[in-house]
Amino acid sequence: MGHKFMSDRINRQVCLAARPEGLPKSADWSIVEEPVVALGPGEILVKVRYISVDPAMRGWMNDRPSYVPPVRLGAVMRALTVSEVVESNNASYQVGDWVAGLDGVQDYMVSDGAQYMKVDIALAPPQTYLGTLGIAGLTAYCGLFEVGEQKTGDTVLVSGAAGSVGAHVGQLTKIKGGRTIGVAGGVEKCAYLIDELGFDAAIDYKNENVYSGLKRTCPDGVDVFFDNVGGDVLNNSLAFINVGARVVICGAISQYNKTTSIQGPSNYMMLLIRRASMKGFIYFDYRHKWPAMLEDLAMWRSEGKITGREDIAEGPVDIFPDTLCRLFQGDNFGKLIIRLPM
Amino acid sequence: MGHKFMSDRINRQVCLAARPEGLPKSADWSIVEEPVVALGPGEILVKVRYISVDPAMRGWMNDRPSYVPPVRLGAVMRALTVSEVVESNNASYQVGDWVAGLDGVQDYMVSDGAQYMKVDIALAPPQTYLGTLGIAGLTAYCGLFEVGEQKTGDTVLVSGAAGSVGAHVGQLTKIKGGRTIGVAGGVEKCAYLIDELGFDAAIDYKNENVYSGLKRTCPDGVDVFFDNVGGDVLNNSLAFINVGARVVICGAISQYNKTTSIQGPSNYMMLLIRRASMKGFIYFDYRHKWPAMLEDLAMWRSEGKITGREDIAEGPVDIFPDTLCRLFQGDNFGKLIIRLPM
Repeated sequence: MGHKFMSDRINRQVCLAARPEGLPKSADWSIVEEPVVALGPGEILVKVRYISVDPAMRGWMNDRPSYVPPVRLGAVMRALTVSEVVESNNASYQVGDWVAGLDGVQDYMVSDGAQYMKVDIALAPPQTYLGTLGIAGLTAYCGLFEVGEQKTGDTVLVSGAAGSVGAHVGQLTKIKGGRTIGVAGGVEKCAYLIDELGFDAAIDYKNENVYSGLKRTCPDGVDVFFDNVGGDVLNNSLAFINVGARVVICGAISQYNKTTSIQGPSNYMMLLIRRASMKGFIYFDYRHKWPAMLEDLAMWRSEGKITGREDIAEGPVDIFPDTLCRLFQGDNFGKLIIRLPM
Repeated sequence: MGHKFMSDRINRQVCLAARPEGLPKSADWSIVEEPVVALGPGEILVKVRYISVDPAMRGWMNDRPSYVPPVRLGAVMRALTVSEVVESNNASYQVGDWVAGLDGVQDYMVSDGAQYMKVDIALAPPQTYLGTLGIAGLTAYCGLFEVGEQKTGDTVLVSGAAGSVGAHVGQLTKIKGGRTIGVAGGVEKCAYLIDELGFDAAIDYKNENVYSGLKRTCPDGVDVFFDNVGGDVLNNSLAFINVGARVVICGAISQYNKTTSIQGPSNYMMLLIRRASMKGFIYFDYRHKWPAMLEDLAMWRSEGKITGREDIAEGPVDIFPDTLCRLFQGDNFGKLIIRLPM
C-alpha cells in the first residue's frame, strides 16, 4: 500500500534557470530535488532510464514562438525519454513495463500514463526507442520519404550524416535504391559512413572544402538534400541541386548557438533556377503514420539493413548540461543518450 | 516577288556588348544595324511591334548557368515580343497576322514561324499578350494556383504588388476568394492596389517599416507569400507565415543588381517551425496548361475582373537600355513595354 503515501523516493531534476545566449553554460541550469508525490487513482510512477539528447533542445530553451512552447524558466528541461514503470494504480500499466515519452531531464515522473507509447524491450534494447525505433529513425523516415519524396535512383545528400538522424537517412536511401553522400566532420566519421553504413561517398568538412567535395561526389547533381546543419553547408549544397530537387530542412545545428544573426542561404534563388522546393517538417506531424513506419524500421533493423550507433553517457541527471554541449561541438558520434542509474 | 531578294529593310538590334556589374550601363550594349535577309522557302518575316521589359532579363545577362542559357556576348538581347507578319512564304501565316514570341530587342526577325503563338488582336490589344494574356497573367496564374495552391479564404501576401505580375496575383487571389495584401513602393502605387485592383490592404515599403506593416495587415498570418522582391521583404514575410504556408519564389528584383553577395533569408527556419514550403517556379514549365489558363484569363478580363495597367515607352529599340533600368529603380508603374514605330 506504499503507493498511497508520500514516497521516500527523491526526484532529481535539471531545470532551466536562465535563457542562454549562445552555447548554454552551467549558470543556465539549476538542479532541484523534491520528494516524489504519492500516486492518485489511475496514476503511475515511472523511473526515467534513458534521456535523449537532441539538437532541437537548444531551440526549446529560447523564449521565441516555435512549433512547441518554450521551456518555462524554472521548469524541468523537456526531453524524450524511455522509462520503466515502478508503481502503478492504472490497469493499463504493470510494474516493469517500459514506455517512451517526454518525461524530461529528471529521475521520476508521475502521470496518468496517457502520453506514453509502450515499448517492447524483447524486440530491441530500450534505448533503441530513442534511436532507430524512435526520434532518429522516424525523423529520417518522414523527412526522406514523406517530405523529400525520395525515388529509386535519386542522389541524396545529407549533412550531419554521422549524427543519429543523418546516419538513418543514408541507410534508408540505400534501402530505397538511391545513391547517398554524407557530409560529416572528421576522418573517423567519414570512414564510418562508408565502411559501416554503406554511404556511397563522404565529404569531411573539417578537411575538405565543401563546395569542392560536392563537385567531387555529386557530378550529376543532388535530387534530395536532407539538411541538419544549415549555414555554409546548406548554401553550398543549393548550388548543386537538380531540376525538381527537394531540400528538406530538418535542422540547422551550425546556427543554434549563434549570438549574431542566423546565416540565410544566399543561393536560395537556385530554387527558382532549378524549380525546386525547400520544405521544413517535424516528425511529430506524421504520428498517425508512425505505426506503419515503425513496422518498416523494425523489419529493416532485424534484417541488419539499418543500425544506429549509440553514444551513451552514463550518469545522474547532473551530466545533462555538459552532455548537451557536446552536440554543438561535434563531439558526439552517433545518437547521444544519457543512461541514468537505476 | 520582292521577298526573294535582299530586302531593303534595315534591322536595328540591341546587342549585349559586356556582362554588366550591378545596374547595366550604356557601355554594356551595342546598337547594330544589318539589312534584313531575303526569305527562304517556308520562312516568314515579322516586324517587332511590342517588346516586353522584364526583371528576369537581368539574370539572362549574367554568365552563370540558369534556367535558360545566358545571352551570348554580341548577340541580340533576348526579349518577349508581339510582332506582325510583314512577309510570308509559309502557308500557316498571312501578312497581317500577329504573333507572340521571343524575337528579342530588334526590329525584324526571319524564321520558319514554328516558335510563335498566334494572337487575336480582335479579342485584346496586341500588348495585352505581354500582360494579362501573356507572361504577367500566366506567371501569376501558375505561381498562385499551381505552385502556391491558393485555397478559398487564404491570406495571400504579394511583394512587387504594383508590378505586372504582382497586380495580377492580387486580382486572381480575389477571384479565388482570398484576402490579398500587397507590398509596393509609394502612396500612389498603394492607392492603386486598393482602389483600382481591390487589394484588401497595402504596405508602402517607402513609408512604413515592412515588419510593422505585416503586423498591421496580417494579424492572422500569411498562407501564401508570392515573392517578386527578395531581400528584407522576403525575410520579414517569413516571420508571418502560417503552418503549412507556401512561399512562392517568382523573383528577387531587390537582389539582381547587387555587386555584393545576395541576401539569403535568415528567417528560413520558419519553414521548419511552420512546416512550410518555399518553391521556385518558371511559368514556361506549365506551357501544356497555358491554353486552359489563357481561356480563364481572357474570360476574367472580359468580365472586368482583371485589368493590367501598362507602362508603355514609345521609341526605337535604342531606348531599351534606359527603359530596362527603370524596372530596378522602381520607376515603372504597371507592365513595362516598349512600343516600336511601324
